Amino acid sequence: MINRVYIFDTTLRDGEQSPGVSLNMSQKIEIGKALVELGVDVIEAGFPISSPGDFEGVKTLARELKGVEIAALARANRKDIEVAWEALKEAENPRIHTFIATSDIHLQYKLRKSREEVLELAEEAVKFACEFTSNVEFSAEDATRSDWEYLAEVVIRVARAGAKVINIPDTVGYTVPQEYYELIAFLIEKLKAAGFEESLETGELQLSVHCHNDLGLAVANSLSAVLAGARQVECTVNGIGERAGNAAMEEIVMTLKTRADFFRTRLGEALETGINTRKIVPTSQLVAQLTGMYVQPNKAIVGANAFAHESGIHQHGVIAHRLTYEIMNREDVGWSGSAIVLGKHSGRHAVDYKLRSRGWKLSKKALSRIFERFRAEIKDVLRRIPDEYLEGIIYDEFLSEAYPYRVISAQVSSLYGTSLNPISQVEVEDRRVGRRVAVAVGVGSVDAAFKAVAQALGYRFGNEGDGERLKLVDFHIDALGKGTEAEGVCGVILEDEAGRRTAGLGRDGDIVAAGIKALINALNRLEASREKESELRVTLAKEAEGEPSEPGVQPMCR
Amino acid sequence: MINRVYIFDTTLRDGEQSPGVSLNMSQKIEIGKALVELGVDVIEAGFPISSPGDFEGVKTLARELKGVEIAALARANRKDIEVAWEALKEAENPRIHTFIATSDIHLQYKLRKSREEVLELAEEAVKFACEFTSNVEFSAEDATRSDWEYLAEVVIRVARAGAKVINIPDTVGYTVPQEYYELIAFLIEKLKAAGFEESLETGELQLSVHCHNDLGLAVANSLSAVLAGARQVECTVNGIGERAGNAAMEEIVMTLKTRADFFRTRLGEALETGINTRKIVPTSQLVAQLTGMYVQPNKAIVGANAFAHESGIHQHGVIAHRLTYEIMNREDVGWSGSAIVLGKHSGRHAVDYKLRSRGWKLSKKALSRIFERFRAEIKDVLRRIPDEYLEGIIYDEFLSEAYPYRVISAQVSSLYGTSLNPISQVEVEDRRVGRRVAVAVGVGSVDAAFKAVAQALGYRFGNEGDGERLKLVDFHIDALGKGTEAEGVCGVILEDEAGRRTAGLGRDGDIVAAGIKALINALNRLEASREKESELRVTLAKEAEGEPSEPGVQPMCR
Repeated sequence: MINRVYIFDTTLRDGEQSPGVSLNMSQKIEIGKALVELGVDVIEAGFPISSPGDFEGVKTLARELKGVEIAALARANRKDIEVAWEALKEAENPRIHTFIATSDIHLQYKLRKSREEVLELAEEAVKFACEFTSNVEFSAEDATRSDWEYLAEVVIRVARAGAKVINIPDTVGYTVPQEYYELIAFLIEKLKAAGFEESLETGELQLSVHCHNDLGLAVANSLSAVLAGARQVECTVNGIGERAGNAAMEEIVMTLKTRADFFRTRLGEALETGINTRKIVPTSQLVAQLTGMYVQPNKAIVGANAFAHESGIHQHGVIAHRLTYEIMNREDVGWSGSAIVLGKHSGRHAVDYKLRSRGWKLSKKALSRIFERFRAEIKDVLRRIPDEYLEGIIYDEFLSEAYPYRVISAQVSSLYGTSLNPISQVEVEDRRVGRRVAVAVGVGSVDAAFKAVAQALGYRFGNEGDGERLKLVDFHIDALGKGTEAEGVCGVILEDEAGRRTAGLGRDGDIVAAGIKALINALNRLEASREKESELRVTLAKEAEGEPSEPGVQPMCR
Repeated sequence: MINRVYIFDTTLRDGEQSPGVSLNMSQKIEIGKALVELGVDVIEAGFPISSPGDFEGVKTLARELKGVEIAALARANRKDIEVAWEALKEAENPRIHTFIATSDIHLQYKLRKSREEVLELAEEAVKFACEFTSNVEFSAEDATRSDWEYLAEVVIRVARAGAKVINIPDTVGYTVPQEYYELIAFLIEKLKAAGFEESLETGELQLSVHCHNDLGLAVANSLSAVLAGARQVECTVNGIGERAGNAAMEEIVMTLKTRADFFRTRLGEALETGINTRKIVPTSQLVAQLTGMYVQPNKAIVGANAFAHESGIHQHGVIAHRLTYEIMNREDVGWSGSAIVLGKHSGRHAVDYKLRSRGWKLSKKALSRIFERFRAEIKDVLRRIPDEYLEGIIYDEFLSEAYPYRVISAQVSSLYGTSLNPISQVEVEDRRVGRRVAVAVGVGSVDAAFKAVAQALGYRFGNEGDGERLKLVDFHIDALGKGTEAEGVCGVILEDEAGRRTAGLGRDGDIVAAGIKALINALNRLEASREKESELRVTLAKEAEGEPSEPGVQPMCR
């Protein structure tokens, strides 16, 4: 049998059916293109008859995506298949994927049909689909709860009708690896006995698997089926999909790769996929972001902790020799420094790794100072911590003497029930030029305050007024605590016209005052970093030079 | 062989070693008590030598937890074992769990010892531990990458030395189900040949497994080992643990239960655990909350989507007959209405389910109105949506004519750089008594505004002043958008002295004005619900009465 395992990605069909997920057209195209880059063989683009949106989705993906097969789902009837073909026909290599359930429980309660009727519907559907294309896949829904002998009859009948790929789904996530192995092996024997031995050997006819994760076994079941001779695996990025999801593509691909010694053909060739594994993590993060289906930290391969080592014993082991606790290389699945997002649970290693990935070389002592402030000042204040906040700590720690600005006093009004707008007056000091006062009107009180501070110090937001133009690229306010006396927290990130970004953080019993503090903090960091950052990087790197490096230390990336 | 599979829970040891997780003493006790309720057989409480905190943790859990075995980890040396015993000795049923690595890669790079040396250390450690208790477990770290013959030698040696449980960990998550089955079966044969047949049959000697999830196979591997004859499974709640985590207990337990037809002893008895499955979801949520290791929606059994059905085909199927798409009963694993937390991705079914669980019976039309407002007004505004906000929509939709309050105008000052405090003046109308004006001073501008509104309407927060006392049980502010002109959002939940809670939401260009709107909204809902809620429930239920019920409809619980 061939040693290639084909990856049929159904992130855009079964994955998109995850409760709460709804992708718009441009998001589907973005994910589709990423899947092509990743190297999947088939993209299931949707279920055209199910809604006009799905129809358009398949049509557009069929037109836009090149270098990949595009599949569309259709129940085993003429209308579904015609509509599927209509959506698919512009694709480079279209595949009609038709299905009908074969388990008695589905026949009785959902289809209300006899086994003989279903057998005929399956055959007719495949024959009809073959009138449009030779690339036809058939799925026996709920195969794992079907009578094996009956299932084999259906499989042989659709193979004779022209199906090129026959899928044996574990629709409800019911099977277990040993049982599924037996089922696939049984069906292969039956197909061989029916005259399909050669087409199975050459891959002209393929058995496929599609597993759901209700018991947590989708990946193991899929791999077990591959051992038994299945050569197409249907899966999704991050394992998203109906209920507990589908088999996770990244786990299947990386198991085949990591255990190439075990997953082999009878002739001893290692099983292979066409996946570029270095695209796994970026694709995972794109899908998580666009679907809103976040990935838990302890998810295999793509979870934030998957390559992290916390316990002392393990860290020691990893430093001594990578392989003691690592069976994969984080770079091989696309993890890099920039992939790590700092958050509430980030530890010292994550901070160290992040700073190094941004070009900072710090001595252990300097790192300790930064980490302590990170822990004390930021971790519990921001939910997600953009890198600029971390660099801001370095400026506060080493450059605060170069900070030029200070707010002396401010008053800001909030109004309600009038057409007048909030106003503010601020008095600030620029050490280099002295005190300045400014007044501004804003949409809200924070807006009024920000405009007055900017004006007094020679900046502006937007087009109005004079001064250097700054962009507010991030603005965040929050309350720490539950009562009305909760402390207000404000975080801002500014960008100047040269693209330099600095973050500022402010806390105060008054939310508007917290905003003013954050803005001044960001402006001070901006000025100091313009003047002194290059020099500081060199100084810190020199301090760090004498220290032994720690090759192989892995970050606790949260 | 016995048909009981023992659950050895290591949430508090391996789970607590997850990057970023750190539990304090009271959290450990809370989780420990939940595990006892859940019905685990052994709780691994920590690794006493590793830190004073771990030592104290084990000591306290050993003293506090009753009706469960308490295990503590110790490397294979006298000091570790003595310290472990010191921590354990007050337990009802203490177990010393000692380990040493047996793979050549660990021997060479980490231990720098020969196979013969390790064999002796293992034997000595078990003998030494047996001086304290007969309840001794031995683990052969990195067993799955060890030479099988050598591993068998170690296993036989420690069995002879008195180990009652011998654990064969897949420390680096490297093995696959078929391979692991063979390994466990091989070791059992070797043990039988060495004279341990009877003690294996009676369960006096047990093989144990401990699987990591680096390739996504921890659960399948554990189950495969059980099929081969292992009778203890080491696992964690939600599968937390080092890197990609450990085998997820809930998946192992529910697979054994759901596939009791498949998981049987040679005599045909179904394999059983002592787990009360109805405690699974509450325990999962407790662990997620206290460790901060959140559970992804597509996680099997305990993920928010695990029992949800999104696609039309599946919903139809589920309505027609539960079993068409469900292999487990959500109630059997402890899911209930109150377990669902509404959020950004919650769909109509989740809203319906939640309202029904709070005693509201709504017609389809009424539900549609509520869901539309939920989607339009709340979903993108709040990250987590406490139930009170959902009920607030019902009040807005059906009771707004009974809302007594309105803000006419307000002014609030924010100050900076002075010892003066923010002040506010508000003019409000109570339809029943007319206009009122009040002035207040606060810690911050929002605080000043809230105090003035409360005073004008005859309420108070805290002890000062007159009026009915209210508690602000939740207060949340946020900015929607990134610029200074971002809109402010404020959410509050009030509680009166009778325990009635209402939420209010306000949005405005000015954050303080948003706060005033939120407070007035919550106060209006409080007054209207006091007066009219009982009546409204009856009216709505009557409207809903004529409609056909939908037995078996599952919520998309996000």
